[in-house]
Amino acid sequence: MPLVEISMLTGRDTDTKEEMIREVTDAIVRTSGAPPEAVTVIIRDVPPTDWARAGVPYSKVKSS
Amino acid sequence: MPLVEISMLTGRDTDTKEEMIREVTDAIVRTSGAPPEAVTVIIRDVPPTDWARAGVPYSKVKSS
Amino acid sequence: MPLVEISMLTGRDTDTKEEMIREVTDAIVRTSGAPPEAVTVIIRDVPPTDWARAGVPYSKVKSS
Amino acid sequence: MPLVEISMLTGRDTDTKEEMIREVTDAIVRTSGAPPEAVTVIIRDVPPTDWARAGVPYSKVKSS
Amino acid sequence: MPLVEISMLTGRDTDTKEEMIREVTDAIVRTSGAPPEAVTVIIRDVPPTDWARAGVPYSKVKSS
Amino acid sequence: MPLVEISMLTGRDTDTKEEMIREVTDAIVRTSGAPPEAVTVIIRDVPPTDWARAGVPYSKVKSS
Repeated sequence: MPLVEISMLTGRDTDTKEEMIREVTDAIVRTSGAPPEAVTVIIRDVPPTDWARAGVPYSKVKSS
Repeated sequence: MPLVEISMLTGRDTDTKEEMIREVTDAIVRTSGAPPEAVTVIIRDVPPTDWARAGVPYSKVKSS
Repeated sequence: MPLVEISMLTGRDTDTKEEMIREVTDAIVRTSGAPPEAVTVIIRDVPPTDWARAGVPYSKVKSS
Repeated sequence: MPLVEISMLTGRDTDTKEEMIREVTDAIVRTSGAPPEAVTVIIRDVPPTDWARAGVPYSKVKSS
Repeated sequence: MPLVEISMLTGRDTDTKEEMIREVTDAIVRTSGAPPEAVTVIIRDVPPTDWARAGVPYSKVKSS
Repeated sequence: MPLVEISMLTGRDTDTKEEMIREVTDAIVRTSGAPPEAVTVIIRDVPPTDWARAGVPYSKVKSS
């Protein structure tokens, strides 16, 4: 029953997300011993205005 | 001061959400003893491309 | 597949938590149409030093 | 490495978010001793239909 | 800058967690294109009394 | 009604947490326009075995 929540910047396409979901699920199954059906993955897209490091949002980092 | 966060697939209409919020708040009040004003509910909509079980997003399950 | 996360102050006993889990699950089933097996509830206990309103942790409110 | 997640109602403009990110990061740096580069801030916008207190979503409070 | 939060039942030992962290990080790096230094993983242990499916906490499932 | 969740490594004492809560609340009040009573802060302590960057938990970084 592991639950995996992945927050990342918006913009990845559906194929990339599907591959990420599959590979992360595999990693959890291999290392936790849980069956695949017990693994839930949720992706939370975050726009670059809403994610910051060192006090500066990524929307500002990219425009410089 | 219980805080309830509900993640679910996008697509529920406003009436359904209002009813869900009301019933979940009632359930928390009845079982926690907290007054209604102390209960916060936040719904987080997740698109079907971004929620997966067993490595497969719901967007794929539905299209099959 | 609704996922419900309940954050609350530590201290509720196991019976209270079981009742809360059951009633919240019922509320979600009734209002979302999802089957019970699709509903996950996670409780996250928070100590009173780590939860604050208006800048004051509950550990301080209680001692006054 | 503190991680700060701020949930709030949608509608703040980019300038307000930038200022909030900067001031919250400063507050964490001053009180935790962590360097600015170690502080991550994520804002999660919540529409007023999806945030409720006392069983009533903010979308209803505002319309009354 | 992907952020991965893994909630799972308490009880995994440190070696298992280290392996899980390493493999999940690798999966994110391979599929997102982000460098390893940009990937953060946080594990949130949940006791079996506090995690439920279909209204029944895992502490009850195991004792039956 | 902003909700602020701060995840950080375990080990800060109560005085440091109180100061952090107070300063972060002030920063939110100044920049959001919300009154102090509307601001909730929750701290989530994470042990160094459970927080990793670049695939390596902080428990390993510190011991090297």
